[in-house]
Amino acid sequence: MQKNWPARVTLMEVGPRDGFQFEPQIIPTDLKAAVVAGLIEAGLTHIQVASFVHPKRVPQMADAEDLIQRLPQLDHVHYNGLVLNPRGLERALAAQLPSVEISISASDTHSRRNSNMAFDDALDQGMRMIRRAKAAGLYVRAGAQCALGCVYEGPVPPERVTDILRRFRDQGADAVVVSDTTGMGSPVSLKRLLDRLLPAVDPQPVVLHLHDTRGTGLVNMMAGLESGIDRFDTALGGMGGCPFIEGAAGNIATEDAVNLLDMLGIATGVDLHQVAVWARKLETVIGRQLPGKMLRVIPRSAGNPPPSDECCLTP
Amino acid sequence: MQKNWPARVTLMEVGPRDGFQFEPQIIPTDLKAAVVAGLIEAGLTHIQVASFVHPKRVPQMADAEDLIQRLPQLDHVHYNGLVLNPRGLERALAAQLPSVEISISASDTHSRRNSNMAFDDALDQGMRMIRRAKAAGLYVRAGAQCALGCVYEGPVPPERVTDILRRFRDQGADAVVVSDTTGMGSPVSLKRLLDRLLPAVDPQPVVLHLHDTRGTGLVNMMAGLESGIDRFDTALGGMGGCPFIEGAAGNIATEDAVNLLDMLGIATGVDLHQVAVWARKLETVIGRQLPGKMLRVIPRSAGNPPPSDECCLTP
Repeated sequence: MQKNWPARVTLMEVGPRDGFQFEPQIIPTDLKAAVVAGLIEAGLTHIQVASFVHPKRVPQMADAEDLIQRLPQLDHVHYNGLVLNPRGLERALAAQLPSVEISISASDTHSRRNSNMAFDDALDQGMRMIRRAKAAGLYVRAGAQCALGCVYEGPVPPERVTDILRRFRDQGADAVVVSDTTGMGSPVSLKRLLDRLLPAVDPQPVVLHLHDTRGTGLVNMMAGLESGIDRFDTALGGMGGCPFIEGAAGNIATEDAVNLLDMLGIATGVDLHQVAVWARKLETVIGRQLPGKMLRVIPRSAGNPPPSDECCLTP
Repeated sequence: MQKNWPARVTLMEVGPRDGFQFEPQIIPTDLKAAVVAGLIEAGLTHIQVASFVHPKRVPQMADAEDLIQRLPQLDHVHYNGLVLNPRGLERALAAQLPSVEISISASDTHSRRNSNMAFDDALDQGMRMIRRAKAAGLYVRAGAQCALGCVYEGPVPPERVTDILRRFRDQGADAVVVSDTTGMGSPVSLKRLLDRLLPAVDPQPVVLHLHDTRGTGLVNMMAGLESGIDRFDTALGGMGGCPFIEGAAGNIATEDAVNLLDMLGIATGVDLHQVAVWARKLETVIGRQLPGKMLRVIPRSAGNPPPSDECCLTP
């Protein structure tokens, strides 16, 4: 249908980091390890397992090192950790994690409010961290948050995001990440950015980290596919929203992304049913319904018609 | 970005019918009338207000005639009623509704289970109803349910859907409706159908009625736009799922569709904030959270930053 679509897409599962991080109920480390093992069993090969942040700021991530110790070591599986400052990077190095993500906000206001750093200082620090991580032999994803809009500043110029990510590429980043932190992106704004960004960071790949805050996560993923993007971040169950806002949407749900990609004939190697089973298990742990759609559909479609015909009575 | 996109899209709000119909709690007729008035105030000009079905089968629709009496009569507003059998059509005529939707299932199994009619009989009846409605001077939308997949039969051949809708066009239908009742459609299957259907029913327009059951509602709307479709059914708050399955998704949320269309530069004439306000009011009445996304975002984006900065701490 669209010749530009990639034949295969690599999903990085970010549920254990972006999904878990602000859950008020602390998820036991053993359960986290079991979820990661289950996701690997489901076919995921790239998993962001933790964020190295101060445990007082994000208590859910206090067990990062402990969790990493418990993860299965498999040659085909790539674990990644998010590091937001030099201290976090040193922790990731000490934990012998082979891959990190270094990320700053493209919005000065957002940077000041959330990292307590002016944009220019955060950029300098990010570049130093990339050099340090590359010198230590790590694989480095380097990203720009609020790349498609900021709740404080509104639209973010694509030139700005391109400039940040080209600098990161020049420092040695192995891949660059466009994070639509606020879910404000659209197919139009995303294409505008990618048209500029892709040649600017070539030959390094661009990863899309899209939030579904406004219901456009999969729409923007489609727009990314049409620009030839073949790496996306997703989270089981669509975790990753703000749990303090009931019903707020998070990342694209892994199983929903796989369902769509399956229908498009784009390979992922991931079994969406298995991912959905883990998402449902997590719902019972966190005591809250997750926003993903396929985890509601799976029990019905696994050879079972709907429990009540009334649901399909009419158009 | 895509030259084929229409400059303007007409949304038919189906919340008062598809959204309300299976809510277990009876919504008072006055509130229904207030919702419709609110949706008109928000800019919607096409509203499907009721289904003329047996009150024992769908108690929520028992007040169809009463509701229609209470609706504001405005020249620019077009009310539509769903009729699934000749008795329903006669009720719509008696209620002096100027526009009806006549709809059958493209799936024989689904037709037998939900309408207690074999497909061939349902098709004959549908054609008779169209002739009767046209003879009475009504505007007729005629649709095929399960047009992009059936939970019982799986994929539905596009030839079959095209054949049904061409016959309906030939009987005099003013517009034909592709209903993705199960939400099983994809951009690929939808394009395949539209490539065949659009020339077959020309010059009558094709309406897309897309369910978000699998999270692909807006993705499929985008695919429809790329085929030049400019008429979509949506429901405030994304109502229309099966309320017996907690968290099940329904129609495309009107306010989410408007948000996306706004970002694409496609005019709708609808103020998504006002629609979201009504969706939130309905949540308090039905005591359940609706699956739409923008109704969660609106209170934050109306000039207010997020309540907690923690939500945007990281990518």
